[in-house]
Parts: sequence; structure tokens; C-alpha cells
Amino acid sequence: MQIAILGGTGHQGPGLALRFAKAGIDVLIGSRQLDKAGRAVNQVTQILQELGVQEANRVVARTNEVAAQQGEVIFMTVPYPAHRSLLPDIRVDLQGKIFVDVTVPLVSYKPPRLEFPNGNSAAEEVQHILGEAVKVVGAFKMTPAPALAAIDHELASDVLVCGDDDSAKAEVIRLIERIGARAFDAGPLEHARILEELTALLMGLNFRYKRRAIDIRLTGI
Amino acid sequence: MQIAILGGTGHQGPGLALRFAKAGIDVLIGSRQLDKAGRAVNQVTQILQELGVQEANRVVARTNEVAAQQGEVIFMTVPYPAHRSLLPDIRVDLQGKIFVDVTVPLVSYKPPRLEFPNGNSAAEEVQHILGEAVKVVGAFKMTPAPALAAIDHELASDVLVCGDDDSAKAEVIRLIERIGARAFDAGPLEHARILEELTALLMGLNFRYKRRAIDIRLTGI
Repeated sequence: MQIAILGGTGHQGPGLALRFAKAGIDVLIGSRQLDKAGRAVNQVTQILQELGVQEANRVVARTNEVAAQQGEVIFMTVPYPAHRSLLPDIRVDLQGKIFVDVTVPLVSYKPPRLEFPNGNSAAEEVQHILGEAVKVVGAFKMTPAPALAAIDHELASDVLVCGDDDSAKAEVIRLIERIGARAFDAGPLEHARILEELTALLMGLNFRYKRRAIDIRLTGI
Repeated sequence: MQIAILGGTGHQGPGLALRFAKAGIDVLIGSRQLDKAGRAVNQVTQILQELGVQEANRVVARTNEVAAQQGEVIFMTVPYPAHRSLLPDIRVDLQGKIFVDVTVPLVSYKPPRLEFPNGNSAAEEVQHILGEAVKVVGAFKMTPAPALAAIDHELASDVLVCGDDDSAKAEVIRLIERIGARAFDAGPLEHARILEELTALLMGLNFRYKRRAIDIRLTGI
């Protein structure tokens, strides 16, 4: 299994790359600039080597376009506005693939404020831009970057996964379980809106309680 | 401290009454019909006596109107459509008080589907109906009735509290902490919409995973 993380150099990208690589999954870190992707790969590889993880050579740098071509499952962790510049260019390479949208349409951080493009959640807008032949799934929307990057700790929070294609959703859940996290089917793709809004609410809690990585875990399941 | 639970006979009401009474807080269970409130009080009192809780006589029955007059902090757990028939009648008795809206504007259970009245969350609509002199706070939106009713277990989930009046919100958080639960300031009243939508998402998870009481606990806080 080889996954691609588009826009994988910033925020949640490196932490995801670390955790997937540690689980023995090949990772392509994509960026607009190959040298930027290369620097992220070097950092991730160094951390993996310090951890004594043999799979460190599984993380490689690509441009976003090549990562989209070569990856089997594609994660996107670009800041939200990059959707529109990146997605049309790679649309043809994504046909039939699973595309995991990790983005949240934030227009301000403090206070966290969302703006839904055309009234859609980010994930629904991705589906709209990419078309029905791409299996869009929303996941890791709320997972804080510092929690992902803290590779010496298991993820304490759960990953809620939404999407309209049940088999794609099941495959993403299995992938997430390989990194030792609990992942749950949170319903159709339109529920991405709730997860994106919840992310803004959790960011507000971070500011209010002076924390960095507040997330949720399901109880009663 | 004496709280009122309007519409306290169904769903979350009895569990809330149990937990507050066990914590030594006087509870008025309100209902449209006094005898219905009386039956709920008898059930709650019996459970408290079986638990050996001395405060069992602290739970008494009232009509919703009298409960609204006598309670210091008012909780409302009626099914959503009862908002409009009940609130205008008790508006005058609520002036200056804290009013905790526990409702979610569900129009169908399976699948859970919400309809926001006038585009507002239930809590914002309550504020709109009651006017600015009532301090409306949203809380316990997601807390499942079976989890509240399971009095021999501590609440494993957290209570997210939203509202525009900081001191009212702080008082509600202190009240919730008295029943042994963690409660957090989740931002302004408009965040009630996110909590209400999240409730629908969690209900969907209950159906999908064949559970009854899925809720959330914050991590990283």
C-alpha cells in the first residue's frame, strides 16, 4: 500500500506521514515544490531513524501532481484555499481512487471562523470539483497536528470518517486502524460539515483553555 | 440551590433529576400535567432511596409553569416542538434567570434529521423567544438519556456548555461539576448549532454501531 499526502509539508502532513510510515505503509509526501517536499521527507526520516524504525526509507518526496498519479489512496492536507488551484490539475489522475480530504475551510484562526464554499463543506466541495468517479472521504478533520506529530504517544483521540462510498470508507478506516487509532463511520459525506464546524469549536477550546491539541474520543462505543 | 427541569418526565429529565438530587441539589420536575410529574418524582425518589441517598425528598413535582416560577436555574428537556407552546407562557417568570436549553430540533430519529427553526439552533431560537433578559445557555445537548439514567456509573462523557453570558455559563459549569462530570466552555450560544448537529451525528453512530449511549470526551485538555 502506498499513500500520497498532498500538501504534506505543513500542519498535519508530517505527523500523518510519520504514523503511516511507522505502520509500514509507503508514503509519498507531495508539495508544490519538490525541494520543499524533500525537506519534509528528511525531517520525517530522521525522526523515524531516531525511533529505530526500519521503514524510514518508505517516505519519499514528490510534487503534488506526481504524488497524485502514483499514490493509491490520496490524502490532502493543504490549507483550504489551495483546493481550487490544485484539484482541477490532478483530477484526471484521481479517477477511481480514494481521496481523503483532511481540510477545514478556515478563513480566520483566532477566533476560528469557517466559510463554506458555495455553501458546501470542504469535503463536499472537493467531491463537486473532482466529480463522481473519485471516492471522496473526510477524515482526520479535527485531529490536531501536534497530536499526530507526537509519535511516541498513541493517538488518544478517535478519527471520525464520513463519505458516501461505503467500501472506500471501510478501506480508510482500516488504514487508520493500522496506525493504532480508533476510527468510526460517521455517516455520509454531508456530515463533513459537522466535523469541520466541530474543528473550529475545538480550536476555540484550545485558545480558551490554553491547550494545543484538544480533540474528542467517543464514549459508550 | 433549587433547579427546575421543565418537561422533566421524559428522555433526559429523570436522569438529570437523579444526578442533581444525588449531589444535594433540590430539583423541581416540571410537566404539563402535575400527576405525570408526580409519577416521575416517585420513580426518581425510589431509585434514590434504593441507593441510600438521603436527599431523596428533595425532588418534587410541579407544573412547568410553577417550576419555572420557583426554580433558580431552569433546565428544559422537552421535545423540541414544545418550545413554542411552553416558552411564551413562562417568559415573564424567567426574567434574569439562567435558562439551560437541553433540546435538539430533531424532526426524525431514524435517520436523525434536524430542522433549524428560522435558521436558528434550538438554543438561539429559545433566546429569541425569551428575549435578552433571560440568560440562555446550551448544555447536555449530546448527553444520552441512558448514560444520565445509569446513576451507578459516573458520566464518562464531557458536557459542552455554550452561551453568550460568561457568568451564567460559569455557574452552569459549576452545577455540572457538582454531579461529578467535566464541563467545558464551548464558546458563544451560536455554537449550539454545532452541538445539536453533533447530537444527530452521534445518534447515527448509535444506530450504525448498535449502541445506545455514544457521546464524546475531550482529549488533550
